[in-house]
Amino acid sequence: MKKSLGAKTIAFPVPAWAIGTYDADGKPNVMTAAWTGICCSRPPCMAVSLREATSSHGNLVARKAFTISIPSEEQVSEIDYIGVVSGRDRDKFADLGLTPARAEHVDAPYIEEFPVIIECRLLHTIELGLHTQFIGEIMDVKAEEEVLDDKGQPDPARVRPVIFGPGDRSYYGLGAYLGRAFSIGRKK
Amino acid sequence: MKKSLGAKTIAFPVPAWAIGTYDADGKPNVMTAAWTGICCSRPPCMAVSLREATSSHGNLVARKAFTISIPSEEQVSEIDYIGVVSGRDRDKFADLGLTPARAEHVDAPYIEEFPVIIECRLLHTIELGLHTQFIGEIMDVKAEEEVLDDKGQPDPARVRPVIFGPGDRSYYGLGAYLGRAFSIGRKK
Repeated sequence: MKKSLGAKTIAFPVPAWAIGTYDADGKPNVMTAAWTGICCSRPPCMAVSLREATSSHGNLVARKAFTISIPSEEQVSEIDYIGVVSGRDRDKFADLGLTPARAEHVDAPYIEEFPVIIECRLLHTIELGLHTQFIGEIMDVKAEEEVLDDKGQPDPARVRPVIFGPGDRSYYGLGAYLGRAFSIGRKK
Repeated sequence: MKKSLGAKTIAFPVPAWAIGTYDADGKPNVMTAAWTGICCSRPPCMAVSLREATSSHGNLVARKAFTISIPSEEQVSEIDYIGVVSGRDRDKFADLGLTPARAEHVDAPYIEEFPVIIECRLLHTIELGLHTQFIGEIMDVKAEEEVLDDKGQPDPARVRPVIFGPGDRSYYGLGAYLGRAFSIGRKK
């Protein structure tokens, strides 16, 4: 029996990713976003929703570029810190001992220590209400060699991403391998 | 050392959710979407990207409504089947022995057997390229009572959602609890 919970932003899984931007002075900033995901295959695009009140929002509008840095589960405290502190008050890279690396294809920084990063140039800006959704074309994905499988693809079990639970405000790691996509359902 | 992988749609975690719609004759259909997520807190909104070639795309445009049904990991074969078969060829509900339930607030069906469902009415349609992004206002979330915690919130560890790995086309379950959000980073 299903129980109605009302009109809430609850879904599983939701990511916890660091969005990287430069401010007007070229100072790198990162903030955590969970209202984000892949949104198109051709051109390859990511969607990231940010509140206008954040400094990252202004940076992204001005520079028309952002990165996504995907943490591994041992970086869960870092991704949480990046979400609770404002770049207006603190240099989050310095606070956490993380290294801002200049993206190769876009005018934005990423976190060198996170295992997978995505470089995006702004394509669309959609005002939704409290959040503005920024859609960026993926210009490149970069990954640490140690998380790649023998075909050169990032292996989720080596990336070990952080999964956010928006209802009870929890973080989880990645669990057991369940099977091969576009394959295990065919037996049905 | 990071290795460049090119402009690919690779990110972790990505969901595997079933998008429910009615066709012109009122026949329920579901298809699997991974290019989807929460995109605004107020109004609460979900974004779902579908290819125009799918029957769900036409259904959604016509009915201006959709649902998201979130599977548990024991339903991984079902969510994969829903992604590899077209609703034009097969009645996926009948094939899988799943029950289409009429949503309470919108003109769309959901999967009764999946533990968490979200009812959405179409707000925005954004043409991105191969995919059209549909943004829907969340009208209600419904969850099985057995997945709720003592505060009445869905507990990720009881929902046990399916996580899709787009690079190597894998499915994973949810792993270990890592800590409390907006909290564990404060010690940094």
